[in-house]
This record gives sequence, C-alpha cells and structure tokens, in this order.
Amino acid sequence: METASRRLAILAEGTLEFHHGKTAVSLLRYRPEDIVAVIDSENRGRTTDEVLGIGGDIPVVASVDDTFAMRPDALVIGIAPFGGGLPEQWRREILAAIDHGMDVISGLHFMLADDAEFAEAARAHTVKLVDVRRAPEDLQVATFAGHRPGARVVTFVGSDCAVGKMTAALEVTQAARHMGLSAGFVATGQTGIMLEGEGIAIDRVIGDFMSGAMEGLVTRAAERYDWVFVEGQGSLLHPAYSGVTLALLHGSAPDAMILVHPPTQTQIDSYPIAIPSLPRLIRIYEDAAAWVKPARVAALALNTRDMEEREAREAIRAAEEETGLPATDPVRFGGEVLVKAIAEYLVEGRAPTPAAH
Amino acid sequence: METASRRLAILAEGTLEFHHGKTAVSLLRYRPEDIVAVIDSENRGRTTDEVLGIGGDIPVVASVDDTFAMRPDALVIGIAPFGGGLPEQWRREILAAIDHGMDVISGLHFMLADDAEFAEAARAHTVKLVDVRRAPEDLQVATFAGHRPGARVVTFVGSDCAVGKMTAALEVTQAARHMGLSAGFVATGQTGIMLEGEGIAIDRVIGDFMSGAMEGLVTRAAERYDWVFVEGQGSLLHPAYSGVTLALLHGSAPDAMILVHPPTQTQIDSYPIAIPSLPRLIRIYEDAAAWVKPARVAALALNTRDMEEREAREAIRAAEEETGLPATDPVRFGGEVLVKAIAEYLVEGRAPTPAAH
Repeated sequence: METASRRLAILAEGTLEFHHGKTAVSLLRYRPEDIVAVIDSENRGRTTDEVLGIGGDIPVVASVDDTFAMRPDALVIGIAPFGGGLPEQWRREILAAIDHGMDVISGLHFMLADDAEFAEAARAHTVKLVDVRRAPEDLQVATFAGHRPGARVVTFVGSDCAVGKMTAALEVTQAARHMGLSAGFVATGQTGIMLEGEGIAIDRVIGDFMSGAMEGLVTRAAERYDWVFVEGQGSLLHPAYSGVTLALLHGSAPDAMILVHPPTQTQIDSYPIAIPSLPRLIRIYEDAAAWVKPARVAALALNTRDMEEREAREAIRAAEEETGLPATDPVRFGGEVLVKAIAEYLVEGRAPTPAAH
Repeated sequence: METASRRLAILAEGTLEFHHGKTAVSLLRYRPEDIVAVIDSENRGRTTDEVLGIGGDIPVVASVDDTFAMRPDALVIGIAPFGGGLPEQWRREILAAIDHGMDVISGLHFMLADDAEFAEAARAHTVKLVDVRRAPEDLQVATFAGHRPGARVVTFVGSDCAVGKMTAALEVTQAARHMGLSAGFVATGQTGIMLEGEGIAIDRVIGDFMSGAMEGLVTRAAERYDWVFVEGQGSLLHPAYSGVTLALLHGSAPDAMILVHPPTQTQIDSYPIAIPSLPRLIRIYEDAAAWVKPARVAALALNTRDMEEREAREAIRAAEEETGLPATDPVRFGGEVLVKAIAEYLVEGRAPTPAAH
C-alpha cells in the first residue's frame, strides 16, 4: 500500500460532523502525523480538533485547491458511502488533485484506475491511483486447513456495520503490543488497509473466494504473530451484508471472538431490524461459528462514544452483569482488559469473567 | 441467455461417470432435445443413456472434432470444477469449437471473453462467448423492502454443495405448474441459468452486492409469479461457501424453506465437518433466517439417487418421523408432495405434517 510516510489531504466533504467519515476519523486518530489537511466545506476554517476532538490543529479547508499550500502529495478519499459509488461532484476535486501532481488513494467500490478520465489524467501527470479495495487476482477457495498451532486468532464481530469493530481491534492490538505480546492486526476493510498498509477489503471479494481470502490473510498473519486480531465486517443480522460477515467468521476460523456493540444503538442502521439482547447476540455468533469450528465470545468491546463517562462505566458494568463476560470501551479506557480476558481464556483456559473495575 | 433452441455439444471430459458433470447431467435431464452430443473420451462410443441412464441415445464422443457430424452450433462447458478455473487441456477443445464456428457457453469462474486468445478467435470466426457466470454490472445493496404481497417465496437450502438443491427446485416448479399454479424458478448458479435462460450466479457476485442481487432476482420473479422457487447455493456448514449461502438466504427473504439432503451423506464433501441430524440442520437454517426474517423449513427434499427404491422410501419415512415434516425425493417420486406441503403451510396456515404415503 502506497500510504506510508506521506503528506495526506483527506476528502471528507459533508461527512465530518456526524462521524460518517469513518476513514477520515480513523486516519486522524491513528496517523495524525501524516495528515496535512481535511477537506469539508461545511467546516472550513476550523481545525479537526474543533470539529471532531482529534487530530490537533490540522486545518479543515473547503476544496482540494485550498490544500496545495500545505504541499500534500496524496489525496485520500475519506468516506465510504452506502454502496460505495463515486459522488459526481467529487470528480472535479479528484481531477484537481491529479492535475496538481498528487496520488489519489481510494477505498470506494468505484475503481478510480478503471475510469478512463482518471486513468488518462494520472498517466499525463505520472501520479498513482491506489484503489485499496481492489481484490487480489490470485484468491483461492478456503481449505479449512487451520492456522499455525500456538498462534491465537481473535475475530471482532458486531451488532451492526460501523459500530467500531476496526477501532476496537486496533486498540486491542496496540494494548497487546504494549503488554509485550507478539500481536498483529488483520485489516479487512478499506480504512484498516489504509492504516495497516496491507489487507483485503473482504466485501469487495467475489462470493466464492471470500472465505478463502480471509483464510489466507489470517494464516499468513499467524505465521508472523502469536496473537492475531481480525477486523470484522458487517453483522450477521444485517440483511445486506450478513454473507460477508459469515464468510469472514468461517474463513478466519477464530479461537475466540470479541463482540463490539454501542449500548445506545437499538436497531440496524437504516433497516427495520431490532438488535437483540447481548446474550442473544453472543449466542448468534457462537452458534454460527460452531457450524464449522466452535469459538466463544470471550469479551465485549462497548462503543460508548456518545455517552458521558459515568454513563459509559454504568453501561459497561450492566453489560458485564447481563453476560457474565469482561467488558470495556477500549478507545476510552484502553484495550488491556480485553487482552487479559482473551489471554486468560485462550492460554490459561479460564472461563471469561467480568473484569475488576 | 443465448441457449434457447440450440444444437448443443457438451464438453464433460472425465466427469460423466461419477455425476460430477452437474451441468451436463442437468442439461441432459431437462433439455435433452437440444443436445446433439456429449464429449467424454472415457465413455466414447456409448450413449448418455448407457452411461447415465438419461438423455436417450445421445452419443458420447471423444473430442469436439467428433461432434461436427451432428452439426452443433454451440459448445457448452459442462462441468463446474472446484474453484472454477479452466483446465488447460480444454483450451484446444474450445479453440477447435470456435474455429468450427460454434458459440461457446461457459459457467466457469474463468471468463472466456476476457481471455485474449479466445476473444481474438471468436472475433475472427464471428461466434459468441457466453460467460453465464459473469455478474451484472448494475447490482445494488439490498434494501430489505420485501417482495410483492400475495407472492410466496420458497428458498431451497441444503446440507452441502451439490446435493440437488437446483434439481429439487426445478422439480417442484414443474410440479407446481402441472398443478395449475403460477410458479417461477429463480436460477442462482451457472447450470440453473443455462436451463432457465436467466438468473445470476450469486457465488460470482462481489460480497457487498450478493444479498442485493438476490433481492432483485426474487423481487422481479415475485412480480411475475405467485410462487417463486429459489435455487439455493452451498451450505451454512460449508467453510468456503457459507457466506454465499447466508447472503442468498437473507437476500431472498423467503416465506418458507425446503431442506435438501442426501440421506447417505454424512460429511461436507472434502472437508472434515460432519453433517448434523436433520432436526439440527433445520434449526440452523431457521435460526439464520430469523436473524432478519423468520421462515420455517416446511418440507424436506431427499436426494436418494444412490439408493434402491425400497431403501429410498424407508429413508423418506425415517426423515418424516425424525422431523415431523413432509418429505420426498422429488426427482424419484415427483414434487407434488412438496408443493402441497408448502401451499398448506403458506396459504392455509397449517403446520407442516408428514405426507400420506
């Protein structure tokens, strides 16, 4: 991936305010040193810290043209819109970046490099078009061969899309490394790939090869790391994306799962499907895993972003009581609780129990 | 689909004997009048009836060259190998067909039209390369909007791949039509598409769009028919294909399911996963359906191909006793029992009960 050590401008037009700009927010959280500007005309003149509470004094500007003073060398398409298409109004922004000699890094379903106008412009200005969501050509059908014995694979699953599975996995990976463990993060979506520098956007893979793609990613990671934390996608309850979620679950063949859920969310976003209780959610994921290989949900990562701290602590305690599992919000309170829970369960064989707070 | 009213030669090299040539066998069963020859050098000189017990006196020959005397106008690639690639030795057979002015119809993952040598040869001889597995370009994310009220959607699910879900769905559709019902078959795999003339090979669709592709197929079929029978794919127990199966299930959003299983099969083909009892299989599919929309397994279609008739009748009775559901082998005994069971359940609201034999 062509995103290491860069000066990045992030196109996040109209998406910052409500945290819909998942890619933008994640890059600001985990790679702020590489970001020179964020484009969102509604918030122009402010800093990302003022708008989002992260990223310090990185300026928010109105257009690609306004970033040129900060000498960016690449434009990142910083949103993942429903369905993954390319909003037409962005075309001229992308062309402006290419004309200015910037690479363009995109996580859209729409492949920039396959667009005649973009491809021609990129050739003329000798810049790169990086479609991180493009699936590799050499994928295989899953073999169910299993990963290296001794490595432990933990897959993050969730109640819905965009509940914080990637962020939880990143925080837990970081915490594990701080605790001295050999830990790797497996990126399965465009934002994770932009952050990690490798991975496969599993929702972009052809059905027959999804599970095999996951198996390949996890098997390779398990050769390098003792602890492999796998970014989840979608939800088994999601009418549009459940197939991707199950392929990811069965292909990653985890030894344990961590369930991610925002306590204030009661329904699948944009669909009339109620999110069931935590015990039922856990049961759903454990049942589905067991169809091919049993794995327990060993801990809960609650996303308490929209709660006061006191409320968040109460929600965590309530979730622990309801499920009997250790829980925390790894963004707010760090991922150590989850690493310890997983290690006690998978290494020492102790049943997961609520953390001491 | 370019397969209506044709003179077809089917390439089934090395696959006839053990029924691995699913496409060949299905075309011979449901479109024998369109088949002029089958290519399988191991069985050359025999008839398809002698080799397979179907298709009458359609000759089996050794190569594409040997079919020319029967004036074929298209070559069908009649197998669906593991992973969907193109065996190299078939390249010269396909080129021989093109050179002879035949169209080539393929259900492989390997896209003939994207291969430079085939594309060039097809252009030179003005023949068509029809890749039935190619996904449409204009797919959408599923909306979960629901199909036309009054139409009933029945999805076929199975214990494994290649257990007869397509055949059961075709037999039930035929039986429903014979009983005077407005019934349509929704093809979701390459063979079904070759038989039906339309459909989408769902295992070839990109993850994010699988469920939406199914929703589109089923919604359109429910505009035209009161009874919509959906060909299933894979199995929820299959480590490589379960994601496709779940996307098909949730995208088709059925009102009821029919479970297909060969009583003699105890394990997922090529994978160390035991097939559980029928009641547990039913529970798995009903649980998974209920995550987004409840649907019952209302009947069983047993594939008794490898059993004597007496054995088959016993297996059917045993399955009925074990599950409390009506069961039959629709290929052997006709699909009426299943149509009646589904109609009683969905129209009259009567709980499914074993058929009278």
